Amino acid sequence: MSNNTKSNALWGGRFNSGVNDTMQALNASIKFDQRLAQQDILGSLAHVSMLSKQGIIAKEEANKIISGLDLVKQEIESGLFNFSEAHEDIHMNIENRLFELIGSTAGVLHTGRSRNDQVATDFRLWVRDATDEIVILIADLMKSFLHQAENGIDTIMPGFTHLQLAQPVTFGHHMLAYVEMLSRDKKRFIDSRLRLNECPLGAAALAGTSFPIDRELTAKALSFDRPMANSIDAVSDRDFALEFLSCCSLCATHLSRFSEEIVIWSSSQFNFVTLSDSFSTGSSIMPQKRNPDAAELIRAKVGRVNGSLTALLTVMKGLPLAYSKDLQEDKEQVFDTKDTMCLMLKVMKEMVADLKPNKAVLLASSDKDFSTATDLADWLVKKLKIPFRDAHRITGNLVRVAEQQGCNLCGLDLDVFKSFDERITREVYKVLNVVKSVESRQSYGGTSPCEVKKQVDEWKKVLN
Amino acid sequence: MSNNTKSNALWGGRFNSGVNDTMQALNASIKFDQRLAQQDILGSLAHVSMLSKQGIIAKEEANKIISGLDLVKQEIESGLFNFSEAHEDIHMNIENRLFELIGSTAGVLHTGRSRNDQVATDFRLWVRDATDEIVILIADLMKSFLHQAENGIDTIMPGFTHLQLAQPVTFGHHMLAYVEMLSRDKKRFIDSRLRLNECPLGAAALAGTSFPIDRELTAKALSFDRPMANSIDAVSDRDFALEFLSCCSLCATHLSRFSEEIVIWSSSQFNFVTLSDSFSTGSSIMPQKRNPDAAELIRAKVGRVNGSLTALLTVMKGLPLAYSKDLQEDKEQVFDTKDTMCLMLKVMKEMVADLKPNKAVLLASSDKDFSTATDLADWLVKKLKIPFRDAHRITGNLVRVAEQQGCNLCGLDLDVFKSFDERITREVYKVLNVVKSVESRQSYGGTSPCEVKKQVDEWKKVLN
Amino acid sequence: MSNNTKSNALWGGRFNSGVNDTMQALNASIKFDQRLAQQDILGSLAHVSMLSKQGIIAKEEANKIISGLDLVKQEIESGLFNFSEAHEDIHMNIENRLFELIGSTAGVLHTGRSRNDQVATDFRLWVRDATDEIVILIADLMKSFLHQAENGIDTIMPGFTHLQLAQPVTFGHHMLAYVEMLSRDKKRFIDSRLRLNECPLGAAALAGTSFPIDRELTAKALSFDRPMANSIDAVSDRDFALEFLSCCSLCATHLSRFSEEIVIWSSSQFNFVTLSDSFSTGSSIMPQKRNPDAAELIRAKVGRVNGSLTALLTVMKGLPLAYSKDLQEDKEQVFDTKDTMCLMLKVMKEMVADLKPNKAVLLASSDKDFSTATDLADWLVKKLKIPFRDAHRITGNLVRVAEQQGCNLCGLDLDVFKSFDERITREVYKVLNVVKSVESRQSYGGTSPCEVKKQVDEWKKVLN
Amino acid sequence: MSNNTKSNALWGGRFNSGVNDTMQALNASIKFDQRLAQQDILGSLAHVSMLSKQGIIAKEEANKIISGLDLVKQEIESGLFNFSEAHEDIHMNIENRLFELIGSTAGVLHTGRSRNDQVATDFRLWVRDATDEIVILIADLMKSFLHQAENGIDTIMPGFTHLQLAQPVTFGHHMLAYVEMLSRDKKRFIDSRLRLNECPLGAAALAGTSFPIDRELTAKALSFDRPMANSIDAVSDRDFALEFLSCCSLCATHLSRFSEEIVIWSSSQFNFVTLSDSFSTGSSIMPQKRNPDAAELIRAKVGRVNGSLTALLTVMKGLPLAYSKDLQEDKEQVFDTKDTMCLMLKVMKEMVADLKPNKAVLLASSDKDFSTATDLADWLVKKLKIPFRDAHRITGNLVRVAEQQGCNLCGLDLDVFKSFDERITREVYKVLNVVKSVESRQSYGGTSPCEVKKQVDEWKKVLN
Repeated sequence: MSNNTKSNALWGGRFNSGVNDTMQALNASIKFDQRLAQQDILGSLAHVSMLSKQGIIAKEEANKIISGLDLVKQEIESGLFNFSEAHEDIHMNIENRLFELIGSTAGVLHTGRSRNDQVATDFRLWVRDATDEIVILIADLMKSFLHQAENGIDTIMPGFTHLQLAQPVTFGHHMLAYVEMLSRDKKRFIDSRLRLNECPLGAAALAGTSFPIDRELTAKALSFDRPMANSIDAVSDRDFALEFLSCCSLCATHLSRFSEEIVIWSSSQFNFVTLSDSFSTGSSIMPQKRNPDAAELIRAKVGRVNGSLTALLTVMKGLPLAYSKDLQEDKEQVFDTKDTMCLMLKVMKEMVADLKPNKAVLLASSDKDFSTATDLADWLVKKLKIPFRDAHRITGNLVRVAEQQGCNLCGLDLDVFKSFDERITREVYKVLNVVKSVESRQSYGGTSPCEVKKQVDEWKKVLN
Repeated sequence: MSNNTKSNALWGGRFNSGVNDTMQALNASIKFDQRLAQQDILGSLAHVSMLSKQGIIAKEEANKIISGLDLVKQEIESGLFNFSEAHEDIHMNIENRLFELIGSTAGVLHTGRSRNDQVATDFRLWVRDATDEIVILIADLMKSFLHQAENGIDTIMPGFTHLQLAQPVTFGHHMLAYVEMLSRDKKRFIDSRLRLNECPLGAAALAGTSFPIDRELTAKALSFDRPMANSIDAVSDRDFALEFLSCCSLCATHLSRFSEEIVIWSSSQFNFVTLSDSFSTGSSIMPQKRNPDAAELIRAKVGRVNGSLTALLTVMKGLPLAYSKDLQEDKEQVFDTKDTMCLMLKVMKEMVADLKPNKAVLLASSDKDFSTATDLADWLVKKLKIPFRDAHRITGNLVRVAEQQGCNLCGLDLDVFKSFDERITREVYKVLNVVKSVESRQSYGGTSPCEVKKQVDEWKKVLN
Repeated sequence: MSNNTKSNALWGGRFNSGVNDTMQALNASIKFDQRLAQQDILGSLAHVSMLSKQGIIAKEEANKIISGLDLVKQEIESGLFNFSEAHEDIHMNIENRLFELIGSTAGVLHTGRSRNDQVATDFRLWVRDATDEIVILIADLMKSFLHQAENGIDTIMPGFTHLQLAQPVTFGHHMLAYVEMLSRDKKRFIDSRLRLNECPLGAAALAGTSFPIDRELTAKALSFDRPMANSIDAVSDRDFALEFLSCCSLCATHLSRFSEEIVIWSSSQFNFVTLSDSFSTGSSIMPQKRNPDAAELIRAKVGRVNGSLTALLTVMKGLPLAYSKDLQEDKEQVFDTKDTMCLMLKVMKEMVADLKPNKAVLLASSDKDFSTATDLADWLVKKLKIPFRDAHRITGNLVRVAEQQGCNLCGLDLDVFKSFDERITREVYKVLNVVKSVESRQSYGGTSPCEVKKQVDEWKKVLN
Repeated sequence: MSNNTKSNALWGGRFNSGVNDTMQALNASIKFDQRLAQQDILGSLAHVSMLSKQGIIAKEEANKIISGLDLVKQEIESGLFNFSEAHEDIHMNIENRLFELIGSTAGVLHTGRSRNDQVATDFRLWVRDATDEIVILIADLMKSFLHQAENGIDTIMPGFTHLQLAQPVTFGHHMLAYVEMLSRDKKRFIDSRLRLNECPLGAAALAGTSFPIDRELTAKALSFDRPMANSIDAVSDRDFALEFLSCCSLCATHLSRFSEEIVIWSSSQFNFVTLSDSFSTGSSIMPQKRNPDAAELIRAKVGRVNGSLTALLTVMKGLPLAYSKDLQEDKEQVFDTKDTMCLMLKVMKEMVADLKPNKAVLLASSDKDFSTATDLADWLVKKLKIPFRDAHRITGNLVRVAEQQGCNLCGLDLDVFKSFDERITREVYKVLNVVKSVESRQSYGGTSPCEVKKQVDEWKKVLN
């Protein structure tokens, strides 16, 4: 039941027997934390240079280790490195290989640090890279939406509330709503990166170290803004991972909202947009189907992202300081979420670019369901000085009459209008036109093409 | 940007261009759903036999397909099968290979079914197997707890509420509490299996089929209790996956509770139990450490399991009928949860077996903190006929005096007792003894060794 | 900063000072657990009768207490009871009032029990009642769907996958899918009730008691199937609450799916169903709006229910045995979820009853998008003995031609058909008809009116 | 089944019948959104002033409305306002009352706005206030921890990893770890406030308005940084609520971690700290108990907070733009979370202040379990120039010997040390002393009293 990892395990000096096999399957993290290889080597390089600079180890030792780590790095990059479960995790896999390559000098590398601060450093570097990658992908997607917005500045479409036609809006305006959401996402990731960007290295196990290390130096070498100020916090904290997941959940929520719109809009009942074959798939039994699979999958994947957030929040609940092994459960959730987010953002970007609004359908659809009723009410207020609530009621009654007559508001005789208020003139028909309606909404941030144009121009400056 | 999967995709007849590459990375499920290979072949075998029996396809065709599927199965089992992303999912990978092996006859296999009912069938079979495996592992773990319970029938330990010593209990009694929890878990999985065990095959895309298929036949061949009664429900439903995840969450919660106890109990402050080296790990910087990693990891993994439940619940929220691609997100959550649960249960079983209660420490710890105060109050009620609330108050005051004197209740002079009620006699000291205390709790399900023995015997009958 | 609750608190005998005010606000549960009043009194009545029967207390004492509790019950039912935060929780509020009403005899009531088993008993009784109520409401909703199903046995509508028209189905068939889902929900609640229905009373603080109580008696008096077998488990366990919440989450998920359908179906683009004014609301600015608010709210409330499940799972994670104060967080989640579920089920039931399918629109919509393409493929298999995969490809190509010609499959010349296979005859046009298509799907559980009729009849037997 | 709200509902002009009763119970939000009263009136005041300034309504009308709103405000503040379910929500309750007070002039108030932008504005104002309150409470709690830190600068205690003694640390250092966590929380709330602080007012239903409103003016009047730039986004967005909940989840997680430590530390086995009676409660059956209820409740409440986050994330999943009624589910989650957070923070602050570290126990506990083994290894590296890995192994072996001899490392004969390396001298015993160990950890952020003092001084500057 026990295995022969005893001699290999770097912490095994005092143990009488090796660990249980099933236990090792549970314990070993190398199958996933090998994704930290790059960061682990970077961290070790910074650490060893500092040790040498501070005179804690000899220059020759440092050089030997640096050369050794470079070799390990090459082996990993070229896919030749043999990751082994017997060495538990990425840190010990690399250190062990270093021993094989340069012999006992490898043993000085771990001076003044612990796996606790090492993994915290590696993981922060990884999440920082992930954040940077996502920020770029979000900006790319924003550009994709912006491009659609620019093309759709005066494309009139139904504006919905409750999935019921409310008022006509412009397609460009609708696209820009997503640019706004994504810009908040971007800022949120950038803010979280600032909070993340402190260096745990040198916190050692939890208490700091008696070696005369220079934490400013390693922090700077790894492009952190500063060393973390409290060594217990440094090894216990996973806020950066939780905040990364939170940011992802919000962003994924936005993507799920647009996906839902794509699914509805590409139904043949709506027929608002067309996706090319590149973003559709067929059916194994129904030869005619063209399914918006990409949108459905993105809509679904918010579940996965939220699940990871729930998972790590649950892990962190009630965990005493400082390091506990529970923290090992942080990585897979973050890795999977980062991969998921990148895939979602990339596919969404191309899907948005691929999207063709069906302008005629959108226009026709926006001119239904009494969509300019608000315009009528507003006109009554402006022209006839009727309080809005009364105007609203009169309009409601006119809608009811039109509904009974089976016509739109434009289709009502002037007499009908006059029966509600004698002062209504033929001018009323003008405000019932959807183009006029859209053009009239010139309040800041409103849907009129001139306002949308301003927003588009503003965003082009920011994004290009 | 497009690839050449067009010719391969079994649904591509009508498409002008292949799918986008990134889109394919999102869409392809073969990297995970290859775990359904076994089930997919079983389902196809049942389907093709039925088609032949019903005269829908020729016997020779059926035989050819059956032989072909057997070959595919062997290829998969021997690891020679080449899973390809170009063929999207396990169903199309297998069908495509069948074409290569037996030619165009493979084309009759999909008669009267769709991928929608096919994947629902495969996945139910998989979850059913997973359920059966977990039920066995739970029973194994119950036995492990039961064994500890039997050995600890008269091992006295502190019983806690609020992690404060409340009353002395027996170690066996505490172990049996987990047997009870796990027995509910087991029953819950068994109940969910009953609900799961209906066959979707023959629901086709969603509407059923005009081929004269016999769904009773395929259901029986696959050991389902019956075919599902509504074909739309058959392809839309993922209750069985959600219920599986719910059952896992509850069970994982129980395991997290015991893990927390192990972590606390194996602290040197408590020192209630000892784990062998097989279930402990060391530190890379602190040579003396022996950490209860296994317990910590199991405690943490409840987060992962709960995360999967949240994920799939989120996916299913507001999904219109019938099949949507969102449903593809069901599998990875369930696969990961099943693997996690099995690992947790196996390690926990061995860890429980490995555990050594430190009897002397447990006994000494139980005789502190006025742990027999309730016994004193109860005695006052029984002997002096004082209402319980008054007895409770008197006892509280005696505790306060003892605390001030820095002694246990036994350490108080009889005079002190008498100052609260003259009628108190020397007999009182007997009820303040922890062994007597434990022995006295003979109410059904109580902690006295005789009651615990009864429970142990009962469980031995059930579990062996 | 401290208050004068010291004298009131039933556990205060030993405390030097009262609790902190803010602390009391955190600690007091009376503002929500007063909902357990009924159950608490029932439990006390069962307990006191048993105590008397066992000779632990005098008959006169028991009678006095029973009369007192009856009075308290009446005060509560009539709204005259003054719930007070100073008495923390429902148990102490009631006991305190009992003291006021009958004097010191009240003090014997708590003999041989603790608040730990008392609250576990109260809460189980409450969840049991909640379960029973929900089971009835689910059955009511099933009837509502069944009624629609019966009326829609031959109402043809589009069957969707991916929100794309897949094949024509019947409205009745679609309605019955929800009857199936709800029947699983019902069974799930019923199963969970069986697991819940064991009595914790008599477990006392955690260890049982030395009083000669009869737990079978109290269990029976409270209609439990049996006393819980392990007293530590009895006070630590909240599985019944978690399982209740899990069942609610699944059921709420089903309701959210139908709600989504209602929202989409009642959009003017779909116009599949009409809700009466009773289930719609208007807009404060757009007089013409008729919004499906009820459906939207039900769709949203699955979030609330899932949130409660996450909440309680998080609370229970890693909680050591036996009782911890954390368990107090169980009630509000369950109370809120029960109220939410009942409201959802009631509104949904009436909304389903209110729903009017727009038959003409449904029929017309089902005859689009080449919805009978599968029928064509199946016909090619049956008549021309072409393997399904080839038939599927030919059909796909025919769909492409029709799409290019801007017509439906029926609109293609026979020559076009023949250009793919000479053997195709005029008979092909018959299978392209949606009515024929629906009628042909007579496999078990399929969408043909005759099959749907059978299902309806089956359900009528079960539900009436 | 229908009620007579028809005439009251401000949107009822076109409706034939009132809404269903159960439906109204589901729909009405007044029971919870009355908490927005203050914000709603503020928003209306800003709106009406702007309308008047822009000449959209007459000055006299504006004045009349302003006086009316002031009256309503007073009625609400004095508790005299009669909130009515018939008027659905807070907006209509207030507007309706305004009609009663000032007559038809009230009808001009809703000019150029909708409930969609109104509620978004109200809710942002509310969340902004909540954020400000929480930021102050976090700072208060930081001060409480800082005070303990200052008092504990040289209080030596065990530093744990895996709840196993790792190295001695100082109590002050441990307290400061929480100051760090909370400072991140604080910054997170402040960042989210910046993102929140844009004004939706003037977005109207979703499209903006044709009235010549000035959104800069209303934004400024309500202390927003700017108006939101896209009117569709303005009414659809609930990021601010989600981000608020995310921030709360992280902060609550931190509080749960300290709560767990309190629970463990106040167990009699640990006995690290003492809570006064003000933060403890007793037992109804065990008179001696002093339970850390406050800590347990705070630990539990992270579940509630995480549940609310899950709930709202689920609600927002896949919601099409712009406003949907689903959004009404945002408020209760946020309200409850804010109340919960404030209570947690307040109680925690007082509990931290109340806490007394048991210095003698802490010191004694830190000198066990070979807690200075790392110091020994480090000494071997520094003095004997042994590579760390070898030093680590030698130390591990010495620990094993000491364990076998049943003594601490100090208790080993010098000969034993020399048997591992001849060069070891008597000087070694100095590094095995816990006080020396703690003093030696002078790396930046380390646990030595001089470093902790620096951190304390730094924080005192920031927080005072």
